[in-house]
Amino acid sequence: MLRTPVAEALGAASAASEIRIGGWVRTRRDAKGFSFLELNDGSCLGNIQCIVDEGTAAWDKLEGVNTGACVAVTGELVESPGKGQKWEVRAKDMTVFGLADPETFPLQKKRHSDEFLRTIAHLRSRTNKYGAAFRIRAEAAHAVHDFFYQNGFYYVHTPILTGSDCEGAGEMFRVTTLPLNTPVKPGENPYAQDFFGKECSLTVSGQLEAEALALGLGKVYTFGPTFRAENSNTPRHAAEFWMIEPEVAFTDINDNMDLAESLTCFVINRVLERRADDMDLFDRFVDKGLVDRLKGMVAQPFARCSYREAIDILKASGKNFEYPAKFGLDLQTEHERFLAEEHFKRPVAVYDYPKEIKAFYMRQNDDRETVAAMDVLVPRIGELIGGSQREERLDVLESRIREMNQDPANYWWYLDLRRFGSVPHSGFGMGFERLVMMLTGISNIRDALPFPRTPGSLEF
Amino acid sequence: MLRTPVAEALGAASAASEIRIGGWVRTRRDAKGFSFLELNDGSCLGNIQCIVDEGTAAWDKLEGVNTGACVAVTGELVESPGKGQKWEVRAKDMTVFGLADPETFPLQKKRHSDEFLRTIAHLRSRTNKYGAAFRIRAEAAHAVHDFFYQNGFYYVHTPILTGSDCEGAGEMFRVTTLPLNTPVKPGENPYAQDFFGKECSLTVSGQLEAEALALGLGKVYTFGPTFRAENSNTPRHAAEFWMIEPEVAFTDINDNMDLAESLTCFVINRVLERRADDMDLFDRFVDKGLVDRLKGMVAQPFARCSYREAIDILKASGKNFEYPAKFGLDLQTEHERFLAEEHFKRPVAVYDYPKEIKAFYMRQNDDRETVAAMDVLVPRIGELIGGSQREERLDVLESRIREMNQDPANYWWYLDLRRFGSVPHSGFGMGFERLVMMLTGISNIRDALPFPRTPGSLEF
Repeated sequence: MLRTPVAEALGAASAASEIRIGGWVRTRRDAKGFSFLELNDGSCLGNIQCIVDEGTAAWDKLEGVNTGACVAVTGELVESPGKGQKWEVRAKDMTVFGLADPETFPLQKKRHSDEFLRTIAHLRSRTNKYGAAFRIRAEAAHAVHDFFYQNGFYYVHTPILTGSDCEGAGEMFRVTTLPLNTPVKPGENPYAQDFFGKECSLTVSGQLEAEALALGLGKVYTFGPTFRAENSNTPRHAAEFWMIEPEVAFTDINDNMDLAESLTCFVINRVLERRADDMDLFDRFVDKGLVDRLKGMVAQPFARCSYREAIDILKASGKNFEYPAKFGLDLQTEHERFLAEEHFKRPVAVYDYPKEIKAFYMRQNDDRETVAAMDVLVPRIGELIGGSQREERLDVLESRIREMNQDPANYWWYLDLRRFGSVPHSGFGMGFERLVMMLTGISNIRDALPFPRTPGSLEF
Repeated sequence: MLRTPVAEALGAASAASEIRIGGWVRTRRDAKGFSFLELNDGSCLGNIQCIVDEGTAAWDKLEGVNTGACVAVTGELVESPGKGQKWEVRAKDMTVFGLADPETFPLQKKRHSDEFLRTIAHLRSRTNKYGAAFRIRAEAAHAVHDFFYQNGFYYVHTPILTGSDCEGAGEMFRVTTLPLNTPVKPGENPYAQDFFGKECSLTVSGQLEAEALALGLGKVYTFGPTFRAENSNTPRHAAEFWMIEPEVAFTDINDNMDLAESLTCFVINRVLERRADDMDLFDRFVDKGLVDRLKGMVAQPFARCSYREAIDILKASGKNFEYPAKFGLDLQTEHERFLAEEHFKRPVAVYDYPKEIKAFYMRQNDDRETVAAMDVLVPRIGELIGGSQREERLDVLESRIREMNQDPANYWWYLDLRRFGSVPHSGFGMGFERLVMMLTGISNIRDALPFPRTPGSLEF
C-alpha cells in the first residue's frame, strides 16, 4: 500500500477508510487505553496525529516507539475532534522501522540552540525550524528556475574548475592531484604533472563564461556553487555557496536593475504563496514581522539612486558610522543597511560606482569616473545582488586590462566576444544563501544551507 | 523599444507595424536594390529574414555587416512570400553593435568539425548544432526540476567540498590553499595549516548527505556538479560533470526503478514536446532515427531483469565480447549496450548485483550474495543511471564497513542515520551529460556541456 505524504493527508478533501502514513515520531503521549503519536514526514511543517487504541495490532507494536522513531501507520483517516487539526489517523496496524534510544537520540522535544544543531547537521532537517528552512530553500530555488524559464532564459552550466585567475574579487582554492610536498624547481612549470597541466582553481563566478553563452543564446543564467577561500569567520560568509548569475545580450544597466527587481519579487511572492506554513514559523519564532516586511518589499517598486546620491544621503544622515562614507570608497554593510532599512525603507538599487572600486569588465560611463555597476541592497542583509553592464568596447576593455598591469593575451577568448559581433549586455550575481536569509530571517549563513563549509569546518 | 525574441516573432499570430529584432547575422545576401539578412538571436534554432531596401535608413548602415555581426533591426513584421518561413522583417532602421571581420571570424558559413569547435568553445553556442544542444540541455534540466517538484521532492544542495574519502568509487581532486611545495613532516598533520585544517576533496557524489536529508524531508534530490580525477580520455568521461541524485525514504529497490523510469520518460517527453525544432536538427544531421528511438523508449515500460539473468542472456547471445560476461564481474559498456540495443531493444533496469562489485552502502539481499543495486541501461549510452536501496540495518552496515578494513567511527554521522529512526530508503544517480547525449545523439561528452574539463584541458 502506497504511503500518503502527511502534507496530502492534512489537506485531504474527505475521510478515507484506508491510509498509510510513514514518518518520524515527534511526540508520543500515552493515556489509559490509547496512545497519541504525532508523525512528521518532512513533506510539510505539520504533524499528523495518530491514535493507537488498545486492542489493535498497532497497539502491540508500541514498545520502544518514542521521539525519533520511524514508523508507518495504517488506518482510517477521520475528522479530528481535537482543535488545531482537521484530520487524524485511527491506527489499525503499524510497522516499526527504526527506534531512537531516548538516552542517546539528540533531538528530544525541546528547543536546541542553532550552534548545537550545527554539530548534528545530519539530523537537523528533522527539526521544525530546519525542515522549514530547507523547504523554503527548495521552493526559492524552484522559483528561480521558473522565473527564468518563463522569461525565455536558458539555464547553462559554467565550469567549476577554472584555469583563469581573472574572475575578479576573491581568494581562490587550488585544485590538484599532486601530493602536498611536490617540489617546485626554478624555471619549470610546477603544474606540468598536474591533472590539467596547469594551475587549476575553483571558480568564484561563472560570469565570464556566461557572457560567452549569452552572446550566442541571448538570455542565459547559471545557478551553481561558487567558492571563496577567505579566512573570514562572519555570519555572512561561507567558503562554498550557491549563486545565480543571469547574463543578457542587448541590455543595459537599467534593464539589469529591472531584471534584478523582477526576479527578487517573483521569488518572494512564490515563497509567501506556496510555503505559507513554513514562513509563518519564521515570522513567529525567528524574525517577527518578517512576512509583513517581505510583503512590503513587493508592494512598491524598489528605490533607485546613484552611488553619488547614496554617498550624499549617508553624509547627510547624521549617523555615526564605523567606516566613513566618502566618494571613492566602497559601501560597507552598515551603509547598505542604513540606505535600505532607514532611508528608503525598502530595497534600493545603487548604480554608477567609481571605477576604482569595481571590476575591470564593468562598462565605463561617459564621465570616465564611474562604471555602470549596480548593487541591490535589502533590509537586514545589505547587498543581495551585484551586477553591471559589461564593457562591450574592445579598445576600452583592453585599456582596462592593461591598467591592471595584465596581459590582454590571457583574456583572448573573453576579448573575442568583443571582436566578433559584440553587443551591449549586462548581468548580475545573486547570492542564493543571502536570498534564503532574507526570506527566512535566518541570521547566520551556516543555517541557510544544509552542510556549511567555513574555515576549519568540513564535517559531514 | 523592446527587443522581440526571434522565437516569438517567428511564431507571431499576426503582422506588426513596428518590431525590433536583435541578433547575429548568419548570412547576408545582396541583390540589386536590397539585401537579405538572416538574424539569429539564440532564442530558437530558426533565423528571421530581414529585408533591407535601398533608400531606408537601414540601408545606409549595411557597410561591413557580414556573418557574425551583431545588429538590431527595426521594421515591419510582414508575411513572407518566400517558402520555409511565415514571417519576415521589412527593415526601416538598424543599429550595428559589433562587426565581425571575415578574415578572422572563425565561424564562417560552412560545416566545422566538432574538434575544431571545441577550440573555440566560447563561440560555438552561435552555431546551429551547439545552440540546439544547449537549449535542449536547458530544457532537460528544467524538466528534471519540474518532475521532482511535481512529485513532492525537495531540491537540496549537498556540499561540493568534502572531508570524507568514503563516498565510494572514483579518484578525487584535492582542494587546498597551501602552496605546492608544502613540506610534510612525519607525525604531523600536514593539513593543519590548510583552510579546513584537514584534507579536503571535491565530491564524487552527494548521496550520503542526501540520505541524511531524505531521512528528515522524506523525498529529496540533488542536481549539482561532481568530479572525478580519472586520467581517462574517452568520449564518455569528463573530470567535471553534473549529476542528479534523488533519495527517498520509505522506498525499496522496486520503487527506485519505478522512479528512474518515470524521471527518464518525463524528460524525454518534455524535450520532444517543447524543443521539437532543435530535436529535428539532431534527428536529421547527427543521429538519424533519434526521435523515433526516443519515442519508442517511452511507448512501453522499460525491461527489468536481474543481474543473474543478464549474465545468462549475455552468455547465450553467441556474441564475441571483448570482456567476459561472468557472474561476479561488472558489466562492461559492450554488455550494457547489447542488452539495451539488441536483446531488449529498449531501456532495461538490471538489479541485484553481486555485492563484491558494488558499494558498501547498498542493501544486502537475503541470499547474502547480492545487493539491491540497480542500473538503468539505455541504447547507445549504456549505463544512464546507477542506484540502490541503501542498507538501513546498523549491524549489517557496520560489518560491511569493517569488511573494507575501515573504522566505523569515520562514518559516525552516516551510521547515526541507522541508529535513530532508520527506515528503508533508496536513491540513484543519473549523469546529466549522459542524459543529454541520449537526448541529442551527441557521441562525445565534450560536446554535451559548454566548457568541458578533461585531462590536460582547462581552457576557457
